[in-house]
Amino acid sequence: MTRLDSAIRRLLAQRACLDRAAALVAGVPGPVLELGLGNGRTYDHLRARLPGRDIFVFERRPAAHPDCTPPEDRLITGDFLDTLPHVQLPAPAALVHADIGTGDKQASLALARALAPLLPRLTTPGAILASDQPMPLPGWTEEPLPEGVAPGRYRLYRRAVGS
Amino acid sequence: MTRLDSAIRRLLAQRACLDRAAALVAGVPGPVLELGLGNGRTYDHLRARLPGRDIFVFERRPAAHPDCTPPEDRLITGDFLDTLPHVQLPAPAALVHADIGTGDKQASLALARALAPLLPRLTTPGAILASDQPMPLPGWTEEPLPEGVAPGRYRLYRRAVGS
Repeated sequence: MTRLDSAIRRLLAQRACLDRAAALVAGVPGPVLELGLGNGRTYDHLRARLPGRDIFVFERRPAAHPDCTPPEDRLITGDFLDTLPHVQLPAPAALVHADIGTGDKQASLALARALAPLLPRLTTPGAILASDQPMPLPGWTEEPLPEGVAPGRYRLYRRAVGS
Repeated sequence: MTRLDSAIRRLLAQRACLDRAAALVAGVPGPVLELGLGNGRTYDHLRARLPGRDIFVFERRPAAHPDCTPPEDRLITGDFLDTLPHVQLPAPAALVHADIGTGDKQASLALARALAPLLPRLTTPGAILASDQPMPLPGWTEEPLPEGVAPGRYRLYRRAVGS
C-alpha cells in the first residue's frame, strides 16, 4: 500500500465514521466538540451532517480558510489539554471528534491518555466519541465500525446512557 | 459536497490518473518527472507503480519524510520554472506528473501556462503528462480519463509519437 493509498483509506474511514457518529447522535441533544481544526475539512463535514448543532472547535493555532473557520464564540484557541478543563459549554456535548494523531505513535497515544479523563465532564450520557486513537473510558463502550473501515483505523465509543 | 468529500474525490482521481498514466507508458522508455514532492505521497505511488524507472523530483523546499524523499541525485531543489530549463536528464522522460495547483486558481493557471512550453525538450514522443491543471500543448492530445474521474479534475495528455 502506497502513501497515496493510505491517505485515501484514512479519509474514507474518517468520513464513514463521522457519518456513522452523526447518525448515532440523531436522538442525543447537545453540541459537538471538534478537537483540532486543521484545514477545516472535518469541521465542514460535521456542520453539513449535523445542521443546527453548535460545533465548538479547539485549536492551538487556527489557520483554516475563513469559510471553514467557526464563529469566534465557538473557536477556543489554545492547547486543548489546557482549554478543555475550563471551558463552559451551554450544554453537555453529544459528539466529540478527536482526530489527534501525529506521525509519532507514542506521543499520539500519550495525548489520547491525557485527553480521555477530560471528556466525562463535557459530554452527555449517550454521547459518541469518534477518535483516531484508542481512548478507553470507564462507562463507554466501543461501537462497531462502518463496513470497510479496518479495525484500529478509527474508533467509535458511546457513553452509556445510565453513566 | 463537503471539503472532506472533495479531498477524497481529489485523491481518488489522482490515484486513478496516475495508475492509468503508468499503464499508458508501459511501452514508452524513459524516466519520470515529478513536479513537486510535498509529503511524498504521489512520489511513493509512482515508484511503486513504475519500479525500475528513475524518478526525478523537482521541489522548491524538500520537506517530506526521508522514506519518501528521492536519492540526492534525483532531487532537483529550486523553483521548477528555474530548474527545468537547465536540467540534463539521462534520457527524455516518459511521464511527467504535475500536481501544481494551489488554492489560487488564476495563479495555478498561470503556472501551468509557464510550465507547458518547457516540457517538449524534456519528454520523449509518446510521453504522458498527468496534470491537475489544463496544459494544452501543440502535438499533445488529451487522453480519456479513467471511469469515475470528473472532467476537469485531472488531465492526461499524450505527446504524439510522430512529434
